[in-house]
Amino acid sequence: MQYFSQTDINAMEQRYRAAFINSLGGFKSFVMVGTADADGATNLAPFSSLFHIGANPPLCGLIVRPDDGAERHTLSNIEKTGFYTINHVKADFYRKAHQTSARYPKNVSEFEATGLTPHYIDGFHAPFVAESNVKFALEMREKHPLSINGTIFIIGEIKHIIVPEDVIQPDGFVDIEKAGTVTCSGLDSYHTTNRLARLTYAKTDSFPKEIALK
Amino acid sequence: MQYFSQTDINAMEQRYRAAFINSLGGFKSFVMVGTADADGATNLAPFSSLFHIGANPPLCGLIVRPDDGAERHTLSNIEKTGFYTINHVKADFYRKAHQTSARYPKNVSEFEATGLTPHYIDGFHAPFVAESNVKFALEMREKHPLSINGTIFIIGEIKHIIVPEDVIQPDGFVDIEKAGTVTCSGLDSYHTTNRLARLTYAKTDSFPKEIALK
Repeated sequence: MQYFSQTDINAMEQRYRAAFINSLGGFKSFVMVGTADADGATNLAPFSSLFHIGANPPLCGLIVRPDDGAERHTLSNIEKTGFYTINHVKADFYRKAHQTSARYPKNVSEFEATGLTPHYIDGFHAPFVAESNVKFALEMREKHPLSINGTIFIIGEIKHIIVPEDVIQPDGFVDIEKAGTVTCSGLDSYHTTNRLARLTYAKTDSFPKEIALK
Repeated sequence: MQYFSQTDINAMEQRYRAAFINSLGGFKSFVMVGTADADGATNLAPFSSLFHIGANPPLCGLIVRPDDGAERHTLSNIEKTGFYTINHVKADFYRKAHQTSARYPKNVSEFEATGLTPHYIDGFHAPFVAESNVKFALEMREKHPLSINGTIFIIGEIKHIIVPEDVIQPDGFVDIEKAGTVTCSGLDSYHTTNRLARLTYAKTDSFPKEIALK
């Protein structure tokens, strides 16, 4: 095992430290955020900072870096319209999803640039990704600039959900492995998954059992 | 594909909705948070809400539910001492990690209850998990109660890091798949991973290539 002190961390070259520290966060949700500006021009950007905040109301958080090209267009569209979609990524298009992080100019849609397909539902301004299996639409509820490093913490409430019918388990668990969702680690590593097990609610007087999947 | 409106979401039974909404967040980092109270009594709790905030300074976020038994002891110890550790979970002890979510009383250490081993480094108050391969120590920098649902958002700065030497790549990427780190989905599903590829930085004029791993 190798040990790194705060002095060692501070001494790391900037890009080396970015790759190193980002890896420590563990496996992450890898999703594409779909938005449109007031004129309906679409934007798509990959995010690995999605996290669950609560189920009632249904809330998700996102950390956005305002100085990044792809994320800046996303942030601007969310701020102006209030709406965005979150789309899980499958193995058959993860390279296209990664490619949407390139610094395309504002007048170029990442949908067209990468060959992904916008999909709309009635009454919702932001586009989904048609190729995505698990996707949901949010309305921004709160925006917190984090003065500690200049990033922005956004809280959204889930308004619409689209998932494959056959991955929903009787207890509400959505089997995203069966749906083909991939995960990522660090800045650029993509992975499929193999389930070890679902485990029953932990109690102090017994060890958890496996939950069978249908 | 099955569609759910906000009305459908609101009509879900509470535990069904918790399982459903939690799954939508995608694959998540599954870690154990190690703390000790002022007297040194240890506590260990599983979290799936860890997220990267930035590398310079090195910051991680955590969403804590104050009404949950396991997380409440963690929160109390972090608030009183300022310190905590984050420990990745491997396949050979993920069931023990899950078990630490049981509502053990304050005077029972989850280390003892599950057979995991506390490990200390000089000058740091909170215990690591010896069995964990990738682990780091943090000092709490900020605490934001989220009035929208009563959870608490904690920002910590990384002070110490321990990782296996052979999983660090030349560019700083830490190969957590090689280190045996598992991921989770929903409230109770655990998964190992298979790398698809690491991809080069995306540019508008070319498609990404694979980065070889050593």
